[in-house]
Amino acid sequence: MKKIKISVIGSTGYAGKELVKILMNHQKMELVHLVSSSHAGKNIAEVFPEFLNKLDKKLINFNLDVVSKYSDIVFTALPHTVSMDAVPELLKKGVKVVDLSADYRIKDSAVYQEWYKKELNQISKELLLEAVYGLPEIYLDKIKDASLVANPGCYPTSVILGIAPLLKYHFVEPEGIIIDSKSGTSGAGRKLSFGLHFSECNENFKAYKVVGHNHTPEVEQELSSIYFGGDDNKQKQQETEIKVSFTPHLLPIDRGILSTCYLSLKGSKEDGEILEVYQKFYERAPFVRIFEPPNLPEIKFVTGTNYCDIGFSIDKRVGKIKVISTIDNLLKGAAGQAVQNMNIMSGFLETEGINF
Amino acid sequence: MKKIKISVIGSTGYAGKELVKILMNHQKMELVHLVSSSHAGKNIAEVFPEFLNKLDKKLINFNLDVVSKYSDIVFTALPHTVSMDAVPELLKKGVKVVDLSADYRIKDSAVYQEWYKKELNQISKELLLEAVYGLPEIYLDKIKDASLVANPGCYPTSVILGIAPLLKYHFVEPEGIIIDSKSGTSGAGRKLSFGLHFSECNENFKAYKVVGHNHTPEVEQELSSIYFGGDDNKQKQQETEIKVSFTPHLLPIDRGILSTCYLSLKGSKEDGEILEVYQKFYERAPFVRIFEPPNLPEIKFVTGTNYCDIGFSIDKRVGKIKVISTIDNLLKGAAGQAVQNMNIMSGFLETEGINF
Amino acid sequence: MKKIKISVIGSTGYAGKELVKILMNHQKMELVHLVSSSHAGKNIAEVFPEFLNKLDKKLINFNLDVVSKYSDIVFTALPHTVSMDAVPELLKKGVKVVDLSADYRIKDSAVYQEWYKKELNQISKELLLEAVYGLPEIYLDKIKDASLVANPGCYPTSVILGIAPLLKYHFVEPEGIIIDSKSGTSGAGRKLSFGLHFSECNENFKAYKVVGHNHTPEVEQELSSIYFGGDDNKQKQQETEIKVSFTPHLLPIDRGILSTCYLSLKGSKEDGEILEVYQKFYERAPFVRIFEPPNLPEIKFVTGTNYCDIGFSIDKRVGKIKVISTIDNLLKGAAGQAVQNMNIMSGFLETEGINF
Amino acid sequence: MKKIKISVIGSTGYAGKELVKILMNHQKMELVHLVSSSHAGKNIAEVFPEFLNKLDKKLINFNLDVVSKYSDIVFTALPHTVSMDAVPELLKKGVKVVDLSADYRIKDSAVYQEWYKKELNQISKELLLEAVYGLPEIYLDKIKDASLVANPGCYPTSVILGIAPLLKYHFVEPEGIIIDSKSGTSGAGRKLSFGLHFSECNENFKAYKVVGHNHTPEVEQELSSIYFGGDDNKQKQQETEIKVSFTPHLLPIDRGILSTCYLSLKGSKEDGEILEVYQKFYERAPFVRIFEPPNLPEIKFVTGTNYCDIGFSIDKRVGKIKVISTIDNLLKGAAGQAVQNMNIMSGFLETEGINF
Repeated sequence: MKKIKISVIGSTGYAGKELVKILMNHQKMELVHLVSSSHAGKNIAEVFPEFLNKLDKKLINFNLDVVSKYSDIVFTALPHTVSMDAVPELLKKGVKVVDLSADYRIKDSAVYQEWYKKELNQISKELLLEAVYGLPEIYLDKIKDASLVANPGCYPTSVILGIAPLLKYHFVEPEGIIIDSKSGTSGAGRKLSFGLHFSECNENFKAYKVVGHNHTPEVEQELSSIYFGGDDNKQKQQETEIKVSFTPHLLPIDRGILSTCYLSLKGSKEDGEILEVYQKFYERAPFVRIFEPPNLPEIKFVTGTNYCDIGFSIDKRVGKIKVISTIDNLLKGAAGQAVQNMNIMSGFLETEGINF
Repeated sequence: MKKIKISVIGSTGYAGKELVKILMNHQKMELVHLVSSSHAGKNIAEVFPEFLNKLDKKLINFNLDVVSKYSDIVFTALPHTVSMDAVPELLKKGVKVVDLSADYRIKDSAVYQEWYKKELNQISKELLLEAVYGLPEIYLDKIKDASLVANPGCYPTSVILGIAPLLKYHFVEPEGIIIDSKSGTSGAGRKLSFGLHFSECNENFKAYKVVGHNHTPEVEQELSSIYFGGDDNKQKQQETEIKVSFTPHLLPIDRGILSTCYLSLKGSKEDGEILEVYQKFYERAPFVRIFEPPNLPEIKFVTGTNYCDIGFSIDKRVGKIKVISTIDNLLKGAAGQAVQNMNIMSGFLETEGINF
Repeated sequence: MKKIKISVIGSTGYAGKELVKILMNHQKMELVHLVSSSHAGKNIAEVFPEFLNKLDKKLINFNLDVVSKYSDIVFTALPHTVSMDAVPELLKKGVKVVDLSADYRIKDSAVYQEWYKKELNQISKELLLEAVYGLPEIYLDKIKDASLVANPGCYPTSVILGIAPLLKYHFVEPEGIIIDSKSGTSGAGRKLSFGLHFSECNENFKAYKVVGHNHTPEVEQELSSIYFGGDDNKQKQQETEIKVSFTPHLLPIDRGILSTCYLSLKGSKEDGEILEVYQKFYERAPFVRIFEPPNLPEIKFVTGTNYCDIGFSIDKRVGKIKVISTIDNLLKGAAGQAVQNMNIMSGFLETEGINF
Repeated sequence: MKKIKISVIGSTGYAGKELVKILMNHQKMELVHLVSSSHAGKNIAEVFPEFLNKLDKKLINFNLDVVSKYSDIVFTALPHTVSMDAVPELLKKGVKVVDLSADYRIKDSAVYQEWYKKELNQISKELLLEAVYGLPEIYLDKIKDASLVANPGCYPTSVILGIAPLLKYHFVEPEGIIIDSKSGTSGAGRKLSFGLHFSECNENFKAYKVVGHNHTPEVEQELSSIYFGGDDNKQKQQETEIKVSFTPHLLPIDRGILSTCYLSLKGSKEDGEILEVYQKFYERAPFVRIFEPPNLPEIKFVTGTNYCDIGFSIDKRVGKIKVISTIDNLLKGAAGQAVQNMNIMSGFLETEGINF
């Protein structure tokens, strides 16, 4: 069988590097070009000695013609707002794109512009509506036929998967949702900063972007759509009706996100009922694992895997349900999910190459 | 000036060790007996080489007569429910006690018995009412005259100090309070367990005792008292009216607690108004530091100190206020606060010996 | 093609768990029995939630007939001296064994008895001579035909591979070799101990078993054999002529060993000459990577892989060469190498299933 | 009693910050000026929130007249080679200086120029001879009368203290000394670099500057002087006769150095004899603790203290002695030792203000 030809733009960031690691071992894909503006000209094993003896490939500068000519599918792992210019050009050349930035996740361009402080041009506004939000557990069918998949953010992946069933079946109130998320440092990328300097970050823990983290609208858009049954490709005011209070924190570990979500139950529920809707919602999802109470996910159970683990606990005294959801932020939260999407777009087994 | 004579019962747990470290350098206290049932007979420097050349003292078994004869004040750093038997005997002998266990923190004996699954005898029930809850920022005057101080739990210290001003001035609703706390591993003590085995705990993060952590009633009792203005020495039903949803998590670091508290604001408030009530509430509290927005506390700022740092952020979109509060769990959350209480009981400067 | 049937005895230690992870994804092996005396009766996913949805297999008690009847090859990942009783029985039943303990690594039974303080019976003494030391980079041909492979220790793997070429080609003096090794905590296993309690181990570093670590004779036997060209299956006095000064240290990380080896160069040597003998020695070794000066291995480059990375630096001022060698102690230092051996014994590609 | 007036130049690096922490609590010193070129104009609590409510002091730019006018003693915690210009000016103004850089530690200007790649002017060359090497355990009397103390490097402090008694009493050969040192990340300072980015440094371990680390000549100068009894203020060829093989490694922890030193014993020695020379050598040293075999130092025993802990083990099989020495690199390895020197220069108790 002929292999699908793949290129990665932004291959020397943490998500890009993880993509390359997956793709070089993927039986049905062939790695064509690795683009890295910061390290063009070097071999990838010079930048990351981990690749010594495993992958012998030169990093190149981005060249639209070269990349599009030899690739069926391109992963764009670029900083937010940089993808905005590259993606339309690639699509015009007829290649499919899985974009790991936040640039095509928000349907409502006004919302995008407000949260990302970046003006959209006409092409981008149209693409926003065309792009499919790449959460396979929810948009499997749309992903199959997509030309452009907007790979979800790491926090949103953990949150949306964590509580979607409760909202879908209206087991909880749509108001007053609290999301307290904690992420390892690789989520912040390779860019040096004082807060990520080892001596500052180690043995520390802090909240950051306590109000206004730009993953908020993405979470709200999807939760609203699930709760209200909205058509995600239409700009509907009511889609953003759910508002969450989202607080990210920085864990002194390499990888992993744990989100603790607090929701108000509609009436009294038992563990069994909750379990049932989760199992039903995810019965065809190979990468979601539901924990039966009193078992709960821990970050270490998912590190190095593409799983999203979900557990919950009913707090009857206060009428709340607490949902704990964990992912590896670089896999199910980025590169793993991107390949999962690509598998679906290519008609492969969903788990191909990411079933570590 | 004559020094106050001090003994520590339970001096080889983490809180006990920290107490010894503070007391050996305290200018106005003299360390008399170090009791440790598990290491009696050894010198403390054999158990903890940190004490080599600094403290040359033999650990002894508990003997009521010996300990009470030579001590003015005794710190009991014993496991919960073990203190229950030792404390009344010490008080009868005329020594003052600062108890670091949870045994005397709850006023309502029915609540204690429900959460701690331990039957109280008549003496203990009476002592519950006599004991003063040792949070100096709130009970300063009562602590001055107390014979028995119940030193607060680590999580409750961070939570109560963190949100007391908002409740006191009725800036927030008493319902729907969410507390998401994260603690370093020393809070779990020196007892070996698989979850604290380095290879399991390192690079991991998890929630635990997601419902039913026994610090919950302590938090609820104090918050209710603050909000409703209750007399804390009376068993009033309404004191426990506030119910919180409390979730502790385990951080892969040695020391420190960060609590993220979510409360619903009553009406719209500005940063300045919030700051003002915090500054007013804590104007005489030497160990509370208020951060002005957008600055927020981080665990590392308080590690090795007796401070409680507090910051907040108003989330106008959802009408919530998020309060971030940090302490060193072994100092302001245990040994440091115990010495702070003892300073107050002895008429010393509140900061004596703990102003690191 | 028919798959080789495999069982693992001691499947719930860290090395055993790692073996199971590798074998469940190995295309040419079928996992038959997982033996665990401590968790028999449970499903492996109950013990390790990581296996949820991935491996549904019950742990059983050891039963010689059951295990030998259905297995072609058995991995014994048992504590040292426990393997001694199990292995001969398995061999008698006609199954091949890869033993991960230290019980069959030493050729000279007197040396074994001295270092391991355990009397050997006659069968074991004979098996010592029959067993092949499972370092494929050195004993490839013998492993092919072996019935019993003694899988090398983690420290010895890093040390022997690190300096074998220098000794083989007599580039260095056989005297005065200093080995300063540092290992992550998983090397110490899952048994709880105070030194591995998170609060004690974290932010700490220490040497341990500074004289007399029982990996010493294993290193000396192999280095002597390489230097003197000895026949490793004969008990020759001169084989143990090389004596090393070996000091292990405990790193506060999960996985990985870095050994810093100090040797005296015979005469002056240039980087190029050294590189050449390393490249020659390892030209057919798929899991050894040589770093050209001034590049040096770091633990993180090998974490999660079966590689041994080797770098060196000539210190002309003092006539020494420093060799830095790194492995993942659970992979090339245990489970990965065990599967590498099994691949060779089974005629598979050496890298099959372990080429992460 | 009148307090000594102190200023700190370079007060926002890690060593400078630690100095400020010590000095603000020192009973006999008064903090006058905090100089920081990178943060001049800010309050120190803006740069380090740890100082909130504790120290309210503005950072200023360096101004020779201002600083020298109001200070009795100045600590210069500047990058190597920057101190070279500032120190002579300060001395000319009549203030005493404790310099934490490496600029005045080497007696032989040719050696300095070779290792630091920096040309010295005539004034500096003369100052090299005048400066006293600030290791109080060895140069106590000279420090008392010094105007300029060159505070030792962190690695050299651990190494020299660790093995000085063995060399002094000629218990070991002066040839073939191997020093394998491991340091926490704060030793590398606050300057951002990829190797200190949390995601790279965490769960990693590596050697660096494997040949040619510039602490080497400092170690060799002092060890030679101790062994040969040289007058340290004269440029004697033989002083540098001892050559060591020194290899530093980076530990993924905040603070602490552990050096493992390998030396060849002259003839057979017993533990008792070794202990005796150590105890004799350090009988008046309040900050050195000797561990009796088989006890050994661990980094955590010295974290946050000014101690140097030393232990040893005789390896009779190979005729070597292994010495393990630990310090907190920011205290005994930098700021703590600087204050110890200052105490001595000022006629205070050696332990004043640093006896944590």
